[in-house]
Amino acid sequence: MTTQELVTQINKKKSFLCIGLDVDLTKIPTHLLKEEDPIFAFNKAIIDATHHLCVSYKPNTAFYEAYGIKGWKSLEKTIKYLNEKHPEIFTIADAKRGDIGNTSTMYAKAFFEDLAFDSVTVAPYMGKDSVEPFLAFDDKHTIMLALTSNQGAFDFQTKMVGETDRKEVYKQVLETSKDWKNSENLMYVVGATKAEYFTEIRKIVPDSFLLVPGVGAQGGNLQDVCKYGMTKNVGLLINSSRGIIYASDKEDFAEAAAKNAEVLQEQMKDILNTL
Amino acid sequence: MTTQELVTQINKKKSFLCIGLDVDLTKIPTHLLKEEDPIFAFNKAIIDATHHLCVSYKPNTAFYEAYGIKGWKSLEKTIKYLNEKHPEIFTIADAKRGDIGNTSTMYAKAFFEDLAFDSVTVAPYMGKDSVEPFLAFDDKHTIMLALTSNQGAFDFQTKMVGETDRKEVYKQVLETSKDWKNSENLMYVVGATKAEYFTEIRKIVPDSFLLVPGVGAQGGNLQDVCKYGMTKNVGLLINSSRGIIYASDKEDFAEAAAKNAEVLQEQMKDILNTL
Repeated sequence: MTTQELVTQINKKKSFLCIGLDVDLTKIPTHLLKEEDPIFAFNKAIIDATHHLCVSYKPNTAFYEAYGIKGWKSLEKTIKYLNEKHPEIFTIADAKRGDIGNTSTMYAKAFFEDLAFDSVTVAPYMGKDSVEPFLAFDDKHTIMLALTSNQGAFDFQTKMVGETDRKEVYKQVLETSKDWKNSENLMYVVGATKAEYFTEIRKIVPDSFLLVPGVGAQGGNLQDVCKYGMTKNVGLLINSSRGIIYASDKEDFAEAAAKNAEVLQEQMKDILNTL
Repeated sequence: MTTQELVTQINKKKSFLCIGLDVDLTKIPTHLLKEEDPIFAFNKAIIDATHHLCVSYKPNTAFYEAYGIKGWKSLEKTIKYLNEKHPEIFTIADAKRGDIGNTSTMYAKAFFEDLAFDSVTVAPYMGKDSVEPFLAFDDKHTIMLALTSNQGAFDFQTKMVGETDRKEVYKQVLETSKDWKNSENLMYVVGATKAEYFTEIRKIVPDSFLLVPGVGAQGGNLQDVCKYGMTKNVGLLINSSRGIIYASDKEDFAEAAAKNAEVLQEQMKDILNTL
Protein backbone atom coordinates (compact mmCIF):
# COMPACT_ATOMS: atom_id res chain seq x y z
CA MET A 1 0.00 0.00 0.00
CA THR A 2 1.30 3.48 -0.83
CA THR A 3 1.26 6.32 1.69
CA GLN A 4 -1.20 8.17 -0.58
CA GLU A 5 -3.61 5.22 -0.48
CA LEU A 6 -3.44 5.29 3.32
CA VAL A 7 -4.18 9.03 3.34
CA THR A 8 -7.13 8.45 0.99
CA GLN A 9 -8.56 5.83 3.37
CA ILE A 10 -8.15 8.17 6.33
CA ASN A 11 -10.09 10.91 4.57
CA LYS A 12 -12.76 8.50 3.36
CA LYS A 13 -13.35 6.84 6.73
CA LYS A 14 -12.73 10.04 8.74
CA SER A 15 -10.48 7.98 10.97
CA PHE A 16 -6.79 7.53 11.63
CA LEU A 17 -7.38 4.82 14.19
CA CYS A 18 -5.22 1.71 14.40
CA ILE A 19 -6.52 -1.17 16.50
CA GLY A 20 -3.94 -3.33 18.25
CA LEU A 21 -4.75 -7.04 18.08
CA ASP A 22 -2.83 -8.14 21.17
CA VAL A 23 -4.77 -11.27 21.97
CA ASP A 24 -4.24 -12.88 25.34
CA LEU A 25 -6.19 -16.11 25.91
CA THR A 26 -6.58 -15.24 29.59
CA LYS A 27 -8.44 -12.03 28.69
CA ILE A 28 -10.81 -13.00 25.88
CA PRO A 29 -14.41 -14.08 26.55
CA THR A 30 -14.40 -17.64 27.86
CA HIS A 31 -17.06 -18.84 25.40
CA LEU A 32 -14.48 -18.43 22.61
CA LEU A 33 -12.12 -20.94 24.20
CA LYS A 34 -14.14 -23.83 22.81
CA GLU A 35 -13.53 -22.61 19.23
CA GLU A 36 -10.93 -24.50 17.20
CA ASP A 37 -8.81 -21.32 16.96
CA PRO A 38 -9.94 -18.94 19.73
CA ILE A 39 -7.41 -16.25 18.80
CA PHE A 40 -8.56 -16.06 15.19
CA ALA A 41 -12.22 -16.28 16.21
CA PHE A 42 -11.66 -13.30 18.51
CA ASN A 43 -9.78 -11.30 15.86
CA LYS A 44 -12.35 -12.05 13.17
CA ALA A 45 -15.20 -10.85 15.38
CA ILE A 46 -13.28 -7.68 16.31
CA ILE A 47 -12.41 -6.99 12.66
CA ASP A 48 -15.98 -7.61 11.46
CA ALA A 49 -17.30 -5.18 14.07
CA THR A 50 -14.71 -2.41 13.74
CA HIS A 51 -13.20 -2.35 10.22
CA HIS A 52 -15.34 0.63 9.12
CA LEU A 53 -14.08 2.67 12.10
CA CYS A 54 -10.33 2.24 11.64
CA VAL A 55 -7.75 2.32 8.86
CA SER A 56 -5.25 -0.07 10.37
CA TYR A 57 -4.82 -3.21 12.48
CA LYS A 58 -1.65 -3.99 14.37
CA PRO A 59 -1.14 -7.50 15.74
CA ASN A 60 1.79 -7.56 18.17
CA THR A 61 3.72 -10.70 17.24
CA ALA A 62 4.67 -11.46 20.87
CA PHE A 63 1.10 -12.43 21.67
CA TYR A 64 1.12 -14.99 18.84
CA GLU A 65 4.63 -16.36 19.38
CA ALA A 66 3.73 -17.05 23.01
CA TYR A 67 1.42 -19.81 21.72
CA GLY A 68 4.04 -21.37 19.43
CA ILE A 69 2.96 -22.85 16.10
CA LYS A 70 -0.73 -22.51 17.03
CA GLY A 71 -0.19 -18.81 17.62
CA TRP A 72 1.72 -18.37 14.38
CA LYS A 73 -1.17 -20.06 12.55
CA SER A 74 -3.63 -17.64 14.15
CA LEU A 75 -1.47 -14.74 12.98
CA GLU A 76 -1.35 -16.14 9.44
CA LYS A 77 -5.14 -16.58 9.37
CA THR A 78 -5.66 -13.06 10.71
CA ILE A 79 -3.47 -11.33 8.12
CA LYS A 80 -4.93 -13.51 5.34
CA TYR A 81 -8.46 -12.59 6.43
CA LEU A 82 -7.56 -8.90 6.47
CA ASN A 83 -5.87 -8.99 3.06
CA GLU A 84 -8.76 -10.88 1.47
CA LYS A 85 -11.74 -9.15 3.07
CA HIS A 86 -10.32 -5.69 3.70
CA PRO A 87 -7.41 -4.99 1.33
CA GLU A 88 -7.91 -1.26 1.97
CA ILE A 89 -6.71 -1.73 5.58
CA PHE A 90 -3.09 -0.80 6.40
CA THR A 91 -1.63 -3.76 8.27
CA ILE A 92 1.20 -3.48 10.78
CA ALA A 93 3.24 -6.39 12.12
CA ASP A 94 4.30 -5.02 15.49
CA ALA A 95 7.45 -7.11 15.73
CA LYS A 96 10.15 -4.61 16.75
CA ARG A 97 12.78 -6.58 14.83
CA GLY A 98 16.31 -5.58 13.87
CA ASP A 99 19.48 -7.53 13.14
CA ILE A 100 22.56 -7.41 10.91
CA GLY A 101 21.94 -6.95 7.17
CA ASN A 102 21.37 -10.45 5.80
CA THR A 103 19.34 -11.38 8.87
CA SER A 104 17.11 -8.30 8.66
CA THR A 105 16.45 -9.31 5.05
CA MET A 106 15.09 -12.63 6.36
CA TYR A 107 12.78 -10.77 8.76
CA ALA A 108 11.65 -8.45 5.97
CA LYS A 109 10.80 -11.48 3.81
CA ALA A 110 8.92 -13.07 6.71
CA PHE A 111 6.66 -10.07 7.25
CA PHE A 112 6.43 -8.47 3.80
CA GLU A 113 6.41 -11.56 1.57
CA ASP A 114 5.41 -14.63 3.56
CA LEU A 115 2.78 -12.91 5.73
CA ALA A 116 2.13 -9.99 3.32
CA PHE A 117 1.89 -7.22 5.91
CA ASP A 118 2.03 -3.62 4.65
CA SER A 119 4.47 -2.63 7.37
CA VAL A 120 6.60 -3.85 10.25
CA THR A 121 7.97 -2.14 13.35
CA VAL A 122 11.76 -2.22 13.85
CA ALA A 123 14.21 -1.23 16.59
CA PRO A 124 16.97 1.28 15.72
CA TYR A 125 19.77 0.19 18.07
CA MET A 126 21.83 -1.68 15.44
CA GLY A 127 21.75 1.25 13.00
CA LYS A 128 21.53 1.77 9.27
CA ASP A 129 22.43 -1.67 7.90
CA SER A 130 19.90 -3.29 10.23
CA VAL A 131 17.02 -1.17 8.90
CA GLU A 132 17.81 -0.59 5.21
CA PRO A 133 16.95 -4.20 4.22
CA PHE A 134 13.36 -3.47 5.30
CA LEU A 135 13.30 -0.17 3.39
CA ALA A 136 14.24 -1.92 0.14
CA PHE A 137 10.70 -3.25 -0.38
CA ASP A 138 8.45 -1.17 -2.68
CA ASP A 139 5.16 0.02 -1.20
CA LYS A 140 6.05 -1.50 2.17
CA HIS A 141 6.64 0.63 5.25
CA THR A 142 9.14 0.36 8.06
CA ILE A 143 8.01 1.86 11.35
CA MET A 144 11.03 2.56 13.52
CA LEU A 145 10.93 3.01 17.29
CA ALA A 146 11.81 6.61 18.17
CA LEU A 147 10.20 7.63 21.47
CA THR A 148 8.21 4.82 23.06
CA SER A 149 5.36 5.21 25.53
CA ASN A 150 6.80 3.17 28.40
CA GLN A 151 8.74 4.30 31.45
CA GLY A 152 11.91 2.69 30.09
CA ALA A 153 11.93 5.30 27.30
CA PHE A 154 13.71 7.54 29.79
CA ASP A 155 16.57 5.05 30.30
CA PHE A 156 18.26 5.68 26.94
CA GLN A 157 15.94 7.38 24.41
CA THR A 158 15.83 10.76 26.15
CA LYS A 159 19.52 10.88 27.09
CA MET A 160 21.47 13.73 25.48
CA VAL A 161 23.88 12.56 22.79
CA GLY A 162 26.47 13.98 20.40
CA GLU A 163 29.55 16.20 20.51
CA THR A 164 28.56 19.75 19.56
CA ASP A 165 24.94 19.82 18.32
CA ARG A 166 23.64 17.81 21.29
CA LYS A 167 20.19 16.22 21.21
CA GLU A 168 18.18 13.40 22.76
CA VAL A 169 18.95 9.90 21.44
CA TYR A 170 15.46 9.60 19.87
CA LYS A 171 15.97 12.86 17.97
CA GLN A 172 19.35 11.58 16.77
CA VAL A 173 17.56 8.42 15.59
CA LEU A 174 15.05 10.53 13.62
CA GLU A 175 17.77 12.79 12.20
CA THR A 176 20.18 10.03 11.18
CA SER A 177 17.55 7.81 9.61
CA LYS A 178 16.47 10.55 7.19
CA ASP A 179 19.65 9.92 5.19
CA TRP A 180 19.14 6.19 4.82
CA LYS A 181 18.36 4.67 1.43
CA ASN A 182 14.60 4.65 0.66
CA SER A 183 13.92 6.63 3.84
CA GLU A 184 10.64 7.75 2.27
CA ASN A 185 9.39 4.31 3.39
CA LEU A 186 10.06 5.16 7.04
CA MET A 187 7.44 5.90 9.67
CA TYR A 188 8.15 6.28 13.40
CA VAL A 189 6.72 5.14 16.73
CA VAL A 190 6.14 8.10 19.06
CA GLY A 191 4.32 7.60 22.34
CA ALA A 192 1.24 9.74 23.06
CA THR A 193 2.23 10.12 26.69
CA LYS A 194 4.54 12.96 25.74
CA ALA A 195 2.40 15.22 23.54
CA GLU A 196 4.67 18.21 24.17
CA TYR A 197 7.48 16.45 22.30
CA PHE A 198 5.55 16.39 19.00
CA THR A 199 6.46 19.99 18.12
CA GLU A 200 10.16 19.16 18.30
CA ILE A 201 9.68 15.91 16.41
CA ARG A 202 7.86 17.69 13.57
CA LYS A 203 10.85 20.00 13.13
CA ILE A 204 12.92 16.92 12.25
CA VAL A 205 10.37 14.82 10.35
CA PRO A 206 7.74 17.30 9.13
CA ASP A 207 5.88 14.89 6.85
CA SER A 208 6.49 11.35 8.11
CA PHE A 209 3.67 9.24 9.45
CA LEU A 210 3.89 8.63 13.20
CA LEU A 211 2.39 5.57 14.85
CA VAL A 212 1.19 6.74 18.26
CA PRO A 213 0.50 4.22 21.04
CA GLY A 214 -0.76 5.25 24.45
CA VAL A 215 -4.18 6.71 23.67
CA GLY A 216 -6.96 4.83 25.46
CA ALA A 217 -10.59 4.34 24.59
CA GLN A 218 -11.28 7.37 26.75
CA GLY A 219 -9.66 9.67 24.21
CA GLY A 220 -6.74 10.56 26.46
CA ASN A 221 -4.65 13.32 25.01
CA LEU A 222 -5.78 12.75 21.42
CA GLN A 223 -6.45 16.47 20.95
CA ASP A 224 -2.97 17.41 22.17
CA VAL A 225 -1.26 14.83 19.98
CA CYS A 226 -3.17 16.10 16.93
CA LYS A 227 -2.55 19.75 17.81
CA TYR A 228 1.21 19.27 17.87
CA GLY A 229 1.71 16.24 15.61
CA MET A 230 -0.73 16.47 12.70
CA THR A 231 0.42 17.35 9.19
CA LYS A 232 -1.50 18.42 6.07
CA ASN A 233 -1.59 14.73 5.12
CA VAL A 234 -2.73 13.83 8.67
CA GLY A 235 0.56 12.00 9.33
CA LEU A 236 -0.75 10.18 12.40
CA LEU A 237 -1.96 6.68 13.16
CA ILE A 238 -3.33 6.53 16.69
CA ASN A 239 -3.21 3.05 18.19
CA SER A 240 -5.48 1.65 20.85
CA SER A 241 -5.27 -2.00 21.84
CA ARG A 242 -6.65 -3.08 25.22
CA GLY A 243 -8.99 -0.09 25.49
CA ILE A 244 -10.87 -1.39 22.46
CA ILE A 245 -10.47 -5.15 22.20
CA TYR A 246 -11.08 -5.82 25.90
CA ALA A 247 -13.99 -3.40 26.31
CA SER A 248 -16.08 -6.36 27.45
CA ASP A 249 -15.22 -9.96 28.35
CA LYS A 250 -18.79 -11.13 27.72
CA GLU A 251 -20.56 -12.34 24.56
CA ASP A 252 -21.03 -8.69 23.52
CA PHE A 253 -17.25 -8.12 23.30
CA ALA A 254 -17.26 -7.22 19.59
CA GLU A 255 -20.10 -4.70 19.92
CA ALA A 256 -18.40 -3.21 22.98
CA ALA A 257 -15.16 -2.93 21.03
CA ALA A 258 -16.97 -1.16 18.19
CA LYS A 259 -18.56 1.22 20.67
CA ASN A 260 -15.18 2.21 22.11
CA ALA A 261 -13.63 2.45 18.65
CA GLU A 262 -16.49 4.70 17.59
CA VAL A 263 -15.83 7.10 20.48
CA LEU A 264 -12.31 7.61 19.17
CA GLN A 265 -13.40 7.72 15.52
CA GLU A 266 -15.98 10.42 16.28
CA GLN A 267 -13.31 12.56 17.90
CA MET A 268 -11.05 11.96 14.90
CA LYS A 269 -13.85 12.96 12.51
CA ASP A 270 -14.25 16.26 14.36
CA ILE A 271 -10.52 16.89 14.22
CA LEU A 272 -10.28 16.02 10.50
CA ASN A 273 -13.25 18.28 9.71
CA THR A 274 -11.37 21.26 11.13
CA LEU A 275 -8.24 20.61 9.02
CA MET B 1 20.87 -23.90 33.16
CA THR B 2 22.89 -22.02 35.75
CA THR B 3 25.97 -19.98 34.87
CA GLN B 4 28.06 -22.39 36.94
CA GLU B 5 26.82 -25.34 34.87
CA LEU B 6 27.84 -23.49 31.72
CA VAL B 7 31.31 -22.83 33.16
CA THR B 8 31.62 -26.51 34.08
CA GLN B 9 30.79 -27.52 30.50
CA ILE B 10 33.36 -25.07 29.14
CA ASN B 11 36.08 -26.53 31.32
CA LYS B 12 35.06 -30.10 30.54
CA LYS B 13 34.91 -29.66 26.77
CA LYS B 14 37.79 -27.17 26.66
CA SER B 15 35.60 -25.02 24.46
CA PHE B 16 33.61 -21.81 24.71
CA LEU B 17 32.36 -22.08 21.16
CA CYS B 18 28.77 -21.26 20.19
CA ILE B 19 27.60 -22.38 16.76
CA GLY B 20 25.04 -20.19 15.02
CA LEU B 21 22.31 -22.20 13.31
CA ASP B 22 21.33 -19.61 10.69
CA VAL B 23 19.89 -21.92 8.10
CA ASP B 24 19.23 -20.52 4.64
CA LEU B 25 17.66 -22.99 2.19
CA THR B 26 19.58 -21.38 -0.67
CA LYS B 27 22.88 -22.22 1.02
CA ILE B 28 22.47 -25.77 2.33
CA PRO B 29 23.52 -28.82 0.29
CA THR B 30 20.92 -29.45 -2.40
CA HIS B 31 20.55 -33.15 -1.57
CA LEU B 32 18.85 -32.10 1.70
CA LEU B 33 16.07 -30.29 -0.13
CA LYS B 34 14.25 -33.57 -0.79
CA GLU B 35 14.00 -34.24 2.97
CA GLU B 36 10.62 -33.63 4.58
CA ASP B 37 12.14 -30.91 6.80
CA PRO B 38 15.42 -29.81 5.16
CA ILE B 39 16.17 -27.21 7.86
CA PHE B 40 15.90 -29.70 10.71
CA ALA B 41 17.78 -32.36 8.72
CA PHE B 42 20.60 -29.84 8.25
CA ASN B 43 20.62 -28.80 11.91
CA LYS B 44 20.52 -32.40 13.16
CA ALA B 45 23.51 -33.35 11.02
CA ILE B 46 25.45 -30.27 12.16
CA ILE B 47 24.60 -30.93 15.83
CA ASP B 48 25.49 -34.64 15.58
CA ALA B 49 28.86 -33.74 14.07
CA THR B 50 29.82 -30.80 16.30
CA HIS B 51 28.16 -31.10 19.75
CA HIS B 52 31.37 -32.36 21.40
CA LEU B 53 33.26 -29.29 20.14
CA CYS B 54 30.95 -26.54 21.37
CA VAL B 55 29.01 -25.60 24.50
CA SER B 56 26.21 -23.67 22.84
CA TYR B 57 23.98 -23.45 19.75
CA LYS B 58 22.31 -20.24 18.65
CA PRO B 59 19.52 -20.40 16.06
CA ASN B 60 18.71 -16.92 14.78
CA THR B 61 14.92 -16.79 14.70
CA ALA B 62 14.82 -14.65 11.53
CA PHE B 63 15.96 -17.59 9.43
CA TYR B 64 13.07 -19.70 10.72
CA GLU B 65 10.37 -17.02 10.62
CA ALA B 66 11.24 -16.37 6.97
CA TYR B 67 9.70 -19.80 6.20
CA GLY B 68 6.51 -19.18 8.18
CA ILE B 69 4.92 -22.06 10.07
CA LYS B 70 7.24 -24.59 8.41
CA GLY B 71 10.21 -22.61 9.70
CA TRP B 72 8.73 -22.33 13.18
CA LYS B 73 8.25 -26.11 13.20
CA SER B 74 11.90 -26.61 12.24
CA LEU B 75 12.92 -24.35 15.12
CA GLU B 76 10.74 -26.32 17.55
CA LYS B 77 12.20 -29.62 16.37
CA THR B 78 15.74 -28.26 16.65
CA ILE B 79 15.39 -27.02 20.23
CA LYS B 80 13.55 -30.21 21.23
CA TYR B 81 16.32 -32.33 19.73
CA LEU B 82 18.94 -30.31 21.59
CA ASN B 83 17.11 -30.46 24.92
CA GLU B 84 16.52 -34.21 24.64
CA LYS B 85 19.85 -35.38 23.23
CA HIS B 86 22.19 -32.74 24.61
CA PRO B 87 20.71 -31.16 27.74
CA GLU B 88 24.22 -30.02 28.71
CA ILE B 89 24.24 -27.58 25.76
CA PHE B 90 23.47 -23.90 26.49
CA THR B 91 20.81 -22.87 23.97
CA ILE B 92 20.36 -19.30 22.74
CA ALA B 93 17.31 -18.00 20.86
CA ASP B 94 18.87 -15.16 18.89
CA ALA B 95 15.66 -13.16 18.62
CA LYS B 96 16.70 -9.61 19.61
CA ARG B 97 13.27 -8.97 21.09
CA GLY B 98 12.11 -6.12 23.32
CA ASP B 99 8.74 -4.47 23.97
CA ILE B 100 6.73 -2.88 26.77
CA GLY B 101 6.38 -4.90 29.98
CA ASN B 102 3.38 -7.17 29.43
CA THR B 103 4.46 -7.80 25.84
CA SER B 104 8.03 -8.69 26.79
CA THR B 105 6.52 -11.20 29.23
CA MET B 106 4.80 -12.86 26.26
CA TYR B 107 8.12 -13.08 24.41
CA ALA B 108 9.82 -14.47 27.50
CA LYS B 109 7.15 -17.16 27.76
CA ALA B 110 7.53 -17.98 24.07
CA PHE B 111 11.27 -18.58 24.32
CA PHE B 112 11.76 -19.76 27.91
CA GLU B 113 8.60 -21.82 28.43
CA ASP B 114 7.07 -22.82 25.09
CA LEU B 115 10.38 -23.43 23.28
CA ALA B 116 12.45 -24.07 26.45
CA PHE B 117 15.58 -22.16 25.42
CA ASP B 118 18.16 -21.39 28.12
CA SER B 119 18.53 -17.82 26.93
CA VAL B 120 17.28 -15.19 24.51
CA THR B 121 18.88 -12.09 23.00
CA VAL B 122 17.11 -8.75 23.58
CA ALA B 123 17.49 -5.16 22.37
CA PRO B 124 17.98 -2.42 24.98
CA TYR B 125 16.36 0.58 23.25
CA MET B 126 13.09 0.48 25.25
CA GLY B 127 14.87 0.33 28.60
CA LYS B 128 14.39 -1.34 31.95
CA ASP B 129 10.73 -2.36 31.84
CA SER B 130 11.25 -3.99 28.43
CA VAL B 131 14.05 -6.24 29.71
CA GLU B 132 13.13 -7.02 33.34
CA PRO B 133 10.29 -9.40 32.34
CA PHE B 134 12.94 -11.66 30.76
CA LEU B 135 15.17 -11.43 33.83
CA ALA B 136 12.38 -12.69 36.08
CA PHE B 137 12.85 -16.32 34.97
CA ASP B 138 15.04 -18.49 37.23
CA ASP B 139 18.06 -20.16 35.60
CA LYS B 140 17.28 -18.45 32.29
CA HIS B 141 19.60 -15.86 30.78
CA THR B 142 18.94 -12.62 28.94
CA ILE B 143 21.63 -11.60 26.49
CA MET B 144 21.33 -7.88 25.78
CA LEU B 145 22.79 -6.15 22.75
CA ALA B 146 25.57 -3.79 23.84
CA LEU B 147 28.12 -3.31 21.04
CA THR B 148 27.19 -5.21 17.89
CA SER B 149 29.60 -6.34 15.17
CA ASN B 150 27.99 -4.58 12.21
CA GLN B 151 28.83 -1.23 10.63
CA GLY B 152 25.56 0.25 11.97
CA ALA B 153 26.95 -0.10 15.51
CA PHE B 154 28.62 3.27 14.88
CA ASP B 155 25.31 5.02 14.12
CA PHE B 156 24.10 5.12 17.73
CA GLN B 157 25.92 2.65 20.00
CA THR B 158 29.25 4.48 19.97
CA LYS B 159 27.83 8.00 20.24
CA MET B 160 28.79 9.87 23.41
CA VAL B 161 25.91 10.26 25.85
CA GLY B 162 25.20 11.86 29.23
CA GLU B 163 25.58 15.19 30.97
CA THR B 164 28.75 15.16 33.07
CA ASP B 165 30.23 11.64 33.16
CA ARG B 166 29.99 11.19 29.40
CA LYS B 167 30.34 7.75 27.82
CA GLU B 168 29.38 5.81 24.70
CA VAL B 169 25.75 4.69 24.47
CA TYR B 170 26.75 1.01 24.72
CA LYS B 171 28.68 1.68 27.92
CA GLN B 172 25.66 3.51 29.31
CA VAL B 173 23.58 0.44 28.44
CA LEU B 174 26.00 -1.81 30.36
CA GLU B 175 26.17 0.58 33.30
CA THR B 176 22.42 1.20 33.61
CA SER B 177 21.43 -2.46 33.24
CA LYS B 178 23.57 -3.49 36.23
CA ASP B 179 20.95 -1.95 38.54
CA TRP B 180 18.01 -3.80 37.05
CA LYS B 181 16.20 -6.47 39.05
CA ASN B 182 17.79 -9.93 38.67
CA SER B 183 20.64 -8.40 36.64
CA GLU B 184 22.73 -11.45 37.59
CA ASN B 185 20.79 -13.15 34.75
CA LEU B 186 22.18 -10.68 32.19
CA MET B 187 24.80 -11.44 29.56
CA TYR B 188 25.79 -9.06 26.75
CA VAL B 189 26.44 -9.16 23.02
CA VAL B 190 29.82 -7.59 22.19
CA GLY B 191 31.20 -7.83 18.66
CA ALA B 192 34.66 -9.32 18.15
CA THR B 193 35.50 -6.76 15.49
CA LYS B 194 36.48 -4.31 18.22
CA ALA B 195 38.79 -6.29 20.50
CA GLU B 196 40.34 -3.11 21.90
CA TYR B 197 37.00 -2.22 23.52
CA PHE B 198 36.97 -5.29 25.76
CA THR B 199 39.28 -3.73 28.34
CA GLU B 200 36.84 -0.86 28.85
CA ILE B 201 33.85 -3.20 28.90
CA ARG B 202 35.43 -5.37 31.59
CA LYS B 203 35.78 -2.29 33.82
CA ILE B 204 31.97 -2.00 33.78
CA VAL B 205 30.95 -5.68 33.77
CA PRO B 206 33.95 -7.56 35.17
CA ASP B 207 32.22 -10.93 35.55
CA SER B 208 29.33 -11.06 33.06
CA PHE B 209 29.33 -13.53 30.21
CA LEU B 210 29.75 -11.89 26.81
CA LEU B 211 28.40 -13.44 23.62
CA VAL B 212 30.88 -12.51 20.91
CA PRO B 213 29.90 -12.71 17.22
CA GLY B 214 32.29 -11.85 14.43
CA VAL B 215 34.95 -14.55 14.81
CA GLY B 216 35.24 -16.65 11.67
CA ALA B 217 36.37 -20.26 11.18
CA GLN B 218 39.81 -18.83 10.45
CA GLY B 219 40.25 -17.83 14.09
CA GLY B 220 40.20 -14.11 13.38
CA ASN B 221 41.05 -12.11 16.46
CA LEU B 222 40.13 -14.82 18.95
CA GLN B 223 43.40 -14.34 20.82
CA ASP B 224 42.84 -10.59 21.17
CA VAL B 225 39.26 -11.04 22.37
CA CYS B 226 40.41 -13.54 24.99
CA LYS B 227 43.37 -11.41 26.03
CA TYR B 228 41.16 -8.43 26.82
CA GLY B 229 37.79 -10.04 27.53
CA MET B 230 38.36 -13.27 29.42
CA THR B 231 37.57 -13.59 33.15
CA LYS B 232 38.55 -16.19 35.73
CA ASN B 233 35.27 -17.94 34.89
CA VAL B 234 36.04 -17.62 31.14
CA GLY B 235 33.10 -15.22 30.67
CA LEU B 236 33.07 -15.56 26.91
CA LEU B 237 30.98 -17.42 24.36
CA ILE B 238 32.48 -17.03 20.91
CA ASN B 239 29.96 -17.45 18.13
CA SER B 240 30.63 -18.61 14.60
CA SER B 241 27.78 -19.23 12.19
CA ARG B 242 28.48 -19.25 8.45
CA GLY B 243 32.18 -20.04 8.91
CA ILE B 244 31.19 -23.39 10.40
CA ILE B 245 27.81 -24.47 9.05
CA TYR B 246 28.57 -23.53 5.42
CA ALA B 247 32.10 -24.94 5.38
CA SER B 248 30.97 -27.17 2.49
CA ASP B 249 27.82 -27.28 0.36
CA LYS B 250 28.41 -30.92 -0.61
CA GLU B 251 27.40 -34.19 1.05
CA ASP B 252 30.37 -33.82 3.42
CA PHE B 253 28.93 -30.59 4.93
CA ALA B 254 28.67 -31.93 8.49
CA GLU B 255 32.23 -33.29 8.53
CA ALA B 256 33.49 -30.02 7.05
CA ALA B 257 31.59 -28.10 9.74
CA ALA B 258 33.16 -30.28 12.45
CA LYS B 259 36.60 -29.67 10.95
CA ASN B 260 36.16 -25.89 11.09
CA ALA B 261 34.64 -26.07 14.57
CA GLU B 262 37.62 -28.14 15.70
CA VAL B 263 40.08 -25.50 14.48
CA LEU B 264 38.42 -22.98 16.79
CA GLN B 265 38.04 -25.47 19.64
CA GLU B 266 41.75 -26.38 19.48
CA GLN B 267 42.65 -22.69 19.78
CA MET B 268 40.25 -22.38 22.71
CA LYS B 269 41.77 -25.40 24.42
CA ASP B 270 45.22 -23.81 24.20
CA ILE B 271 43.88 -20.55 25.62
CA LEU B 272 42.04 -22.30 28.47
CA ASN B 273 45.14 -24.34 29.34
CA THR B 274 47.09 -21.14 29.97
CA LEU B 275 44.46 -19.72 32.34
